[in-house]
Amino acid sequence: MTTTAHTPPAETPPAQAREQFRAGLRRPTSGYSPGYAQVNLIAVPQAQAFDMLLFAQRNPKSCPVLGVLEAGQYSSELLSGGDIRTDIPAYRVYRDGELVAEPDEVTDYWRADLVAFLIGCSFTFEAPMLEAGLPVAHIDQRVNVPMYVTGTDCAPAGSISGPLVVSMRPLPPDRIADAVRITSRYPGVHGAPIHIGNPEELGIRDINSPDFGDPVEIPEGWIPVFWACGVTPQAAVMQSAPELAISHAPGHMLVTDLPNDQLQVP
Amino acid sequence: MTTTAHTPPAETPPAQAREQFRAGLRRPTSGYSPGYAQVNLIAVPQAQAFDMLLFAQRNPKSCPVLGVLEAGQYSSELLSGGDIRTDIPAYRVYRDGELVAEPDEVTDYWRADLVAFLIGCSFTFEAPMLEAGLPVAHIDQRVNVPMYVTGTDCAPAGSISGPLVVSMRPLPPDRIADAVRITSRYPGVHGAPIHIGNPEELGIRDINSPDFGDPVEIPEGWIPVFWACGVTPQAAVMQSAPELAISHAPGHMLVTDLPNDQLQVP
Repeated sequence: MTTTAHTPPAETPPAQAREQFRAGLRRPTSGYSPGYAQVNLIAVPQAQAFDMLLFAQRNPKSCPVLGVLEAGQYSSELLSGGDIRTDIPAYRVYRDGELVAEPDEVTDYWRADLVAFLIGCSFTFEAPMLEAGLPVAHIDQRVNVPMYVTGTDCAPAGSISGPLVVSMRPLPPDRIADAVRITSRYPGVHGAPIHIGNPEELGIRDINSPDFGDPVEIPEGWIPVFWACGVTPQAAVMQSAPELAISHAPGHMLVTDLPNDQLQVP
Repeated sequence: MTTTAHTPPAETPPAQAREQFRAGLRRPTSGYSPGYAQVNLIAVPQAQAFDMLLFAQRNPKSCPVLGVLEAGQYSSELLSGGDIRTDIPAYRVYRDGELVAEPDEVTDYWRADLVAFLIGCSFTFEAPMLEAGLPVAHIDQRVNVPMYVTGTDCAPAGSISGPLVVSMRPLPPDRIADAVRITSRYPGVHGAPIHIGNPEELGIRDINSPDFGDPVEIPEGWIPVFWACGVTPQAAVMQSAPELAISHAPGHMLVTDLPNDQLQVP
């Protein structure tokens, strides 16, 4: 994945955003189509679909399922008029757990037996964080959110297992409680932080070397706050090695028609 | 299912409750083991398991999945030391969608390829309702909660489809907002009401003739409030007719080791 310094765009409706990405625009989607949910993609053959759905059910913090496209289905009410094979800015293709391609569209790689899981993304709660005056460092620094493979194993499900992946946003100590309060209301997009303040305990050796996305500068005195991340299924695919899997490229999400408001509870 | 007028028992730890039911005690479980989650059971052959899990994912208000026992698994951390085939007070066995038996245990009916889904039950939020001084009519009247098959279809998933089933608790008009507020915090056990005040619009013809459970007397001026119900998968099985399905008998739940507190968000 190429790292692209980017400016959050003006308000682009989701259908128009998908059209731009379908036409070939390749860039991280943080800040795109504010007010609408962005989602992670993981698609696996039908033979692994039950295990993947069960993996998601058992790891709801990292894998909150917002939609499933059954075998042969390429669109849904979440991407009205869209096509899951073309409407994401960048994809990753895995064969037997190995990353073999990062194309802009995957029409040639797709198979009729692939089941596609759409998984909530923490970008959804960045809008209410910003509204509450909380800083979102990777947006301010115009880079992709940093993501880390942790030393914590997810609950396995049949043939699927792997480590927890987290995203990180540094925060001033006096705003962390607000971040917990706000993000807790969005369990469908990873909810509350799973870890606050001690990267080593999560098995993260170097906070400046994320496994996915870009490093962010942590201002003096700020604390790293970690949320479960929808890249977790990709790490599971890398470990579990199904014959084929297709995902979005980290940070390059599917922009959906689902209003963020609908993900807020209670 | 025999209707049993019953008195809520003194505090019985979950493991002891399961032991009593394993030994043959047959009674509704509302009020049992306060503080611990009770769950619905639906078990189907592996061939239908993906569809059933997807049905649950697409209908999270009625089918919040709290656990899945994979084929060949009879226990889990939710029922430590227990056995899903014996520890529920009463079961229902469906063949090709027809109810064929209501035994106290299902060891003889179980098959190695059955996948068992444990689905949250609204009994969990009755404790915080009672703590907030809200009346729970079926507990006061010592009967099973009334449940109704509605005219609303659930979102289908492959071979599985069926109508929404709801439970009903009548409330004084000035306490309904409190009930919404409290139950909203428990999305894993059906969450907020899905309908307040107009049974006809849900397709319920006679509020005094529930399809499952017992009728409750509605005090003058009180309003019927409806929550999505974990009996929904049973209605789906009756409509979709997999060759075999095993469930709990409505109101006769599996008492788990999961503290209700863990189901509260945020």
